[in-house]
Amino acid sequence: MLAFYVANKKLKSSEKPLPKLQPGWALIRVRLAGICNTDVEILRGYHAFHGTPGHEFVGQVADVHGVSSSLKKKWLGRRVVGEINVSCSGYGYRPVCGFCRRGLKTHCERRTVLGIVAHDGAFAEYLALPLENLHAVPDSVSDEQAVFVEPLAAACEILQQVNAKKFREAAVLGDGKLAQLIALVLHTAVPRVVMYGKHEKKLALASRRGIKTKKVRGDAFDLKHVKESYGLLVEATGSPTGFALAQLMTEPRGTLVLKSTFHGAAPIETWPIVVKELTVVGSRCGPLAKAIALLRSGKVDPRPFATRTFPMAEAPAAIRFAQKTGVMKVLLKA
Amino acid sequence: MLAFYVANKKLKSSEKPLPKLQPGWALIRVRLAGICNTDVEILRGYHAFHGTPGHEFVGQVADVHGVSSSLKKKWLGRRVVGEINVSCSGYGYRPVCGFCRRGLKTHCERRTVLGIVAHDGAFAEYLALPLENLHAVPDSVSDEQAVFVEPLAAACEILQQVNAKKFREAAVLGDGKLAQLIALVLHTAVPRVVMYGKHEKKLALASRRGIKTKKVRGDAFDLKHVKESYGLLVEATGSPTGFALAQLMTEPRGTLVLKSTFHGAAPIETWPIVVKELTVVGSRCGPLAKAIALLRSGKVDPRPFATRTFPMAEAPAAIRFAQKTGVMKVLLKA
Repeated sequence: MLAFYVANKKLKSSEKPLPKLQPGWALIRVRLAGICNTDVEILRGYHAFHGTPGHEFVGQVADVHGVSSSLKKKWLGRRVVGEINVSCSGYGYRPVCGFCRRGLKTHCERRTVLGIVAHDGAFAEYLALPLENLHAVPDSVSDEQAVFVEPLAAACEILQQVNAKKFREAAVLGDGKLAQLIALVLHTAVPRVVMYGKHEKKLALASRRGIKTKKVRGDAFDLKHVKESYGLLVEATGSPTGFALAQLMTEPRGTLVLKSTFHGAAPIETWPIVVKELTVVGSRCGPLAKAIALLRSGKVDPRPFATRTFPMAEAPAAIRFAQKTGVMKVLLKA
Repeated sequence: MLAFYVANKKLKSSEKPLPKLQPGWALIRVRLAGICNTDVEILRGYHAFHGTPGHEFVGQVADVHGVSSSLKKKWLGRRVVGEINVSCSGYGYRPVCGFCRRGLKTHCERRTVLGIVAHDGAFAEYLALPLENLHAVPDSVSDEQAVFVEPLAAACEILQQVNAKKFREAAVLGDGKLAQLIALVLHTAVPRVVMYGKHEKKLALASRRGIKTKKVRGDAFDLKHVKESYGLLVEATGSPTGFALAQLMTEPRGTLVLKSTFHGAAPIETWPIVVKELTVVGSRCGPLAKAIALLRSGKVDPRPFATRTFPMAEAPAAIRFAQKTGVMKVLLKA
């Protein structure tokens, strides 16, 4: 099969055998894959990952290994999306680790992560995942919507961690693709959501969905001119300067949700967290079922966030394009 | 009266008139005051405060202004400690601010802070505070214990913010005076508390109270050699490197309480907060009544943390002494 891999900070193509299936795993033919900032970070050498990147996908089950015929019948041919963390039970480990025992599978001590940690991902014709990681995609949800399930679930994670309904307003820092999904998800629980961003066109996208927007001047957020503060604020700028601004804009005893996973250290003063007694909540992967339900209900439609779709074979050009200013989600079609 | 003030990064003495009392305020003769790291930071120019520092004290009510004779009778001559944040109601503002309305007086928008923000403090013969800020000290609690009420309350704040009882163990980074109080307070709720520090003598103090201790080598905490991690961890090193270590030592979905308020930016990677989905809780001033109750019950005795007591008149020498290695709490006796 065709598969891309990371070498010398570039995406290279290769012909490989199909991934081997463990008992209880499915072979999935990728239909559509999304390029995430994490993929760009992997290309730059973070995560020390040299396999096949790609963790946002919608695909079709092509084979199932080592399960009952009824399970096989249930899954074969199904259109699916997948939870990207493969935990103890996915690998059949006994006993399962402490985190899995507590139901925190996304924090499994032995986990691999699709396209990120020790597990080949979706920038390929096929990928492999345990059946327990799969979610069937309803017919009413198109591939172009379903490919957003993983990042949308990451946005939904915020509502699992924070009681958002108690806030009358909230702010999102950043206007990129993840920030956009976060704003829409927050808006299902919080009456007034304000997005702070630097790109007029991106802010306009949010504005059309009922999100208040504020344009921030300059190359960086200008800390001196910020007067607003919020009880609930989500940092999703993907930039090292975002955290300092986020601290400043969170009111005393407020909650600051961190979503940016850029690598590299930024100089940060932590005393405002102490003096204002902020709660800073790190937030990563979320519940896929909630994301699918949001898409199905029509409450969130991510399709306008797709800037361009490339054929899978042009993945290297696609990931270069994804790094251009103003570009949002770039998709790869098999 | 004798009062010290900050000028050119030094503590200078002056003769000043007694502080003027607003209605509902008390004049308090300082009996014993404590030197905190924040006082040292003020001396170094942080907080831009040039008045009289000092926010840890036990004193005696010498006068009360503009209240009923029964209130006057209740307070005159009483030995007291005081909440350091003076909020809307302390100043008689109407309407009170949003934070005071929500019961968050320590975050009052208009607050002054004794010895820190626009309010002369305890390195003087007398100070002034609203009656509503005062707590009477029971006869069974000595001056030498009561002078620790403010930092002990700051340690108690952690138990207000975090459900510590659900943890079987917790760690404290740092072995200084605040870290010691925090370890003792945590130990009232958590069966096993481990303190990480660099000073053998300070660790020995904790060890005698049933705290597990681990000596950390070198000038700085060595990140490479840390293997342990905790579901609940308190950062109280007072050092810019503490936060990075604290992140590393907090397990996925764990709670990291920040107590250090050193000024200056340290290079910090924030992605571990996101990937491990940590909750970082800033923690500042706490409930004085709880601290007094702990002292009264005998569950916490802070007296061994006092290294030396100077006469109030020698405050400049005392604050120099307080900055020496190995020195813990330094007290000023009027």
